[in-house]
Amino acid sequence: MKQKLIFTNLVGEAVDGLVAELGNPQIAVVADTNTAQFVLPLLVNDSKAVAGATVITVKSGDVNKNIDTLADLWKKLSAMEATRNTLVINLGGGVVSDMGGFAAATFKRGMRCINIPTTLLAAVDASVGGKTGINFNGLKNQIGAFSEPEAAIISTVFFNTLPQQEILSGYAEMLKHGLLENSEVLGKLLASSPVYPLLDPTRLLPLIEESVLVKSRIVENDITEVGIRKALNLGHTVGHAFESYSYERKSPIPHGYAVAWGLVVELVLSHMLLGFPSDVLHSFAGYVLANYGAHQITCDDYPALIADMRQDKKNLAPDQINFTLLENVGVPRININATPEQIGAALDIYRDLMHIA
Amino acid sequence: MKQKLIFTNLVGEAVDGLVAELGNPQIAVVADTNTAQFVLPLLVNDSKAVAGATVITVKSGDVNKNIDTLADLWKKLSAMEATRNTLVINLGGGVVSDMGGFAAATFKRGMRCINIPTTLLAAVDASVGGKTGINFNGLKNQIGAFSEPEAAIISTVFFNTLPQQEILSGYAEMLKHGLLENSEVLGKLLASSPVYPLLDPTRLLPLIEESVLVKSRIVENDITEVGIRKALNLGHTVGHAFESYSYERKSPIPHGYAVAWGLVVELVLSHMLLGFPSDVLHSFAGYVLANYGAHQITCDDYPALIADMRQDKKNLAPDQINFTLLENVGVPRININATPEQIGAALDIYRDLMHIA
Repeated sequence: MKQKLIFTNLVGEAVDGLVAELGNPQIAVVADTNTAQFVLPLLVNDSKAVAGATVITVKSGDVNKNIDTLADLWKKLSAMEATRNTLVINLGGGVVSDMGGFAAATFKRGMRCINIPTTLLAAVDASVGGKTGINFNGLKNQIGAFSEPEAAIISTVFFNTLPQQEILSGYAEMLKHGLLENSEVLGKLLASSPVYPLLDPTRLLPLIEESVLVKSRIVENDITEVGIRKALNLGHTVGHAFESYSYERKSPIPHGYAVAWGLVVELVLSHMLLGFPSDVLHSFAGYVLANYGAHQITCDDYPALIADMRQDKKNLAPDQINFTLLENVGVPRININATPEQIGAALDIYRDLMHIA
Repeated sequence: MKQKLIFTNLVGEAVDGLVAELGNPQIAVVADTNTAQFVLPLLVNDSKAVAGATVITVKSGDVNKNIDTLADLWKKLSAMEATRNTLVINLGGGVVSDMGGFAAATFKRGMRCINIPTTLLAAVDASVGGKTGINFNGLKNQIGAFSEPEAAIISTVFFNTLPQQEILSGYAEMLKHGLLENSEVLGKLLASSPVYPLLDPTRLLPLIEESVLVKSRIVENDITEVGIRKALNLGHTVGHAFESYSYERKSPIPHGYAVAWGLVVELVLSHMLLGFPSDVLHSFAGYVLANYGAHQITCDDYPALIADMRQDKKNLAPDQINFTLLENVGVPRININATPEQIGAALDIYRDLMHIA
């Protein structure tokens, strides 16, 4: 089944259309404490289906994407007497769609769901492609399933009130898609600034659509990530390690920022191992530094970061660290192993590029 | 992918062959406290792969097929640095393959597994078809996934020490497969007695193979149970209610016994609603009474039993109870709704057939 992608700012209309197509099932809206308060009321006005739904609220934040919240979600689905035919509507960012999607994938062995992302990051990443799950045992997305939603309804109407940091976080995934696609898409993104007012929402929706379609084309060829889907992990082996380690150090960094910095490190590795062009690396690193600043690390952090990389789900053996790298813009190579020494050297060069002493 | 089915009493050889085919991955053997003590040592002698595996032991019994044991399993997979490429070998009854299979389906979004059933019930049912999961919130298999194992290795070598009750439990699922297949298969089963020494293990393996292939043919046409796979629920809507209710009353009955009695009730419903032949119903009920005895219920139990049936995963709306019934032997009809009144009448007739006052 191919997930339906709807790009529109008339969200209520789109929801009601989809629900009718799916036979007007019983509906559970999964929202977090923020979207339940600020987004849900707007949608209740615009959509009969949402107005008549049972609302399940979960605590916001990645720290709550855990087994306790999941169990609570399952209990609430039981309490509303949800069946396999019930439709789950995930209204929120990636935490909501990851966890609501996994609850739907596993409750009574599988219900249907649709995603309505309320952040740019979720719009261009989590809402598409069916990766669902929770954090477990200190590791991100350690438990989960590949389970595609019926559809995603992607709009910019909920972004007005997002903090700048959230927009930048989503934009990092768009940069990744640009790197995977071609120089034209990448060039358009590097020529824009994700900072208001330079990038207004009406200009944003077409850029988002282009970006989501890059991801969607890759995913549909390899849902369960045995091959080419691994291309989408570009930047994420290092990015996840930056993110996990920042949580261990109790000074968490946003996912998208971690990805932006992870992309720089992995382009360095791409240059070292596959001859990725140095000029693109330098202009990309300059863009990241200008818009995201630098993630401060020292060589004392390397062992912990590399230990986190060993836990990456792509690794096929305990002693190897597996990367997706680029030969050039638009030319990904999956399953490239790098040694701890090579990773250390790449982190050294990252610090130079980021002007870290 | 079609699950591989291997019928052999040379289990160690079969395991090593499969593991070599799968590229000699890292192996986790999931066993329960009983199979770890009594079965694993035999297999360690016969299989290099099992001898070199990491063993993960879970507490035995359906009462431990829960979220706590599952979380413990996930933790132990993390601790051994399991990857998506690691192979899980489930060595045990249905509790082990359901829970080990679900852990494998969800750890890092999916690892491979194979099942080595050690009970007749698991051999003819849980080990085949990819239904995995745990009990949750007082309801059986409320959480889970459809996720087929790579293979099942089915033998009778572990059955020698099984209590008679376990053999009868498995035989009930074989009776169900007979009802779904044709009069010849059913007749062979009703002409045998599952009681030692009338049924010796060498006669049993061919009967098991015939039975498993009935299930396998149905499953492969409908892995996620949107249609014909529901045929395999014959006897289980009532059977699960008997079972759940027996746990609520703290006098648990074995799954297979619940299914045997559930089959009788559902053949009564089949007769009432679809004209299932009365003579087959009577001879089947007589066989069940002679071999399984009668499950004692009174009409005071009906409301609780019907409430449990409302929770059945097959139900597509909260106010309907959905059954798989038979027009005749070998002619299943899925998605037949029955009212509480009709179910009550069927339970009345069941009590007559079982000579319950």
